Amino acid sequence: MTLRFVLDTSIFVNPEIRKDFGDNPTEAMKTFLGYAEKLFGKVEFYMPPGIYREVMHFVDEELKPEIELYIIKKPPNLHDLKIPAFVVYELIDDIRRRVDKGLRVAEKAVRESVVETDNVDKIIQKLRRNYRKALREGIVDSKEDFELILLAKELDATIVSADVGILTWAQKMGIKWIDASAFKDVLEGLVEKLGGKNL
Amino acid sequence: MTLRFVLDTSIFVNPEIRKDFGDNPTEAMKTFLGYAEKLFGKVEFYMPPGIYREVMHFVDEELKPEIELYIIKKPPNLHDLKIPAFVVYELIDDIRRRVDKGLRVAEKAVRESVVETDNVDKIIQKLRRNYRKALREGIVDSKEDFELILLAKELDATIVSADVGILTWAQKMGIKWIDASAFKDVLEGLVEKLGGKNL
Repeated sequence: MTLRFVLDTSIFVNPEIRKDFGDNPTEAMKTFLGYAEKLFGKVEFYMPPGIYREVMHFVDEELKPEIELYIIKKPPNLHDLKIPAFVVYELIDDIRRRVDKGLRVAEKAVRESVVETDNVDKIIQKLRRNYRKALREGIVDSKEDFELILLAKELDATIVSADVGILTWAQKMGIKWIDASAFKDVLEGLVEKLGGKNL
Repeated sequence: MTLRFVLDTSIFVNPEIRKDFGDNPTEAMKTFLGYAEKLFGKVEFYMPPGIYREVMHFVDEELKPEIELYIIKKPPNLHDLKIPAFVVYELIDDIRRRVDKGLRVAEKAVRESVVETDNVDKIIQKLRRNYRKALREGIVDSKEDFELILLAKELDATIVSADVGILTWAQKMGIKWIDASAFKDVLEGLVEKLGGKNL
C-alpha cells in the first residue's frame, strides 16, 4: 500500500513550522523535496490546487520541475464526495455564534472611537485583530482549507497541517492526520524504514 | 403515496405571508389546521424541533393538542444524512466573502463615528442593519433552517418557506419546494382534488 499525504501550506510558510525545514519557504521546499526524492515510489505527496497556488506564491519558480515531479496536484472530486450532515450542522451553528460575536466586536470599536477620536487607526487595527479572531480563528474558513480536507478524505490520505480548523474537521470526518510540527521527524523515520538512503 | 410538506416558521410568523392565513400567528395556525384536518390521512405536515419551538413562541398554547395531531414533529437524522461536498464548498466560500464584507461595514462605522460623535446610536443602528445584511441575508445561517432542509431531504418532502437562503439550498440539494406565499392556494387545491369537504 502506498502511503499518501496531503500537504498544507503551513509546512512551507508558517515560520514556526517551516523552521524545521529551512530558513525560508524555498529552502524549506528544497529540504522537503530531498525527502520526497528518497521516498519516491513508496510515499505519495498531494496538494489541492488552491494550496499549491498559495505555496508557489512563496517558493522560488526554479524548483517547479522538481515540485511537479514529487508533489501531485489534484482537486477533490466535489461532485461525488459527501459530508456528514452533523459536521455541516455544527459548522452552521459555530458560524452563527461567530457572526454574533463579530457584531459585538464592531459595536465596541464604534463606541471606543467616539471617545478616542484621534486614535482611530489604532482602534481599526484592534477591530481587525478581534474581528479576525472572532470570525476566522480555529474554523475552516476558506475553499483552500476545505479542498485539503476533501482531498484527504477522497484519497484516504493523511492530512499534514498546523491549522486548528483543518485538524478539527479532519477529526470529525475520520481523516488521518499529522501535526505539521511533527512532519519532519515522520519523514526522517519513513526514509529510514522504507529503505531510502540515510540523510 | 402520501404527500409530505415540511413547514417553515414564515408561514405563521412573517406578516407578508401570514396575512393569507390570518391576522396573527394564532389565527394563521387555526386556518392552517382547518386545511390539515380536511387532508388528514392524505397529506402529512412536518416540523423539525427548532422550527416548532419558534412557531410555538408566537401561537396560543390552547392550539397545542390540535397542532400535535396535525403537525408531525421530527428532527432530521443528522448522523445518516450527507451533504454533497460542492454545496458546503459554496457555503464556505460565500461565508468567507460575507465575513470580509462585515469587516468593511464595521470599519466604515468606526470612521463615521469619529466624525459624528453625537450620532453614535444612529451609527450603531446602521451598523447592525448593514452587518446583518452582509452576514446573514439570503444564507442558511441557523441550525433551525438547516434542520428544515435536512428533514425535507430525508423525507423526500416539499419545503414550504419564504426564506431565500433556505430555498436556494433546497434547489442545490434537489429538494421540492413551494414558496410560502403560494401555500394557501396549494392547500385549497389539495382539499378540492383529494376529496376533502369544500371549505
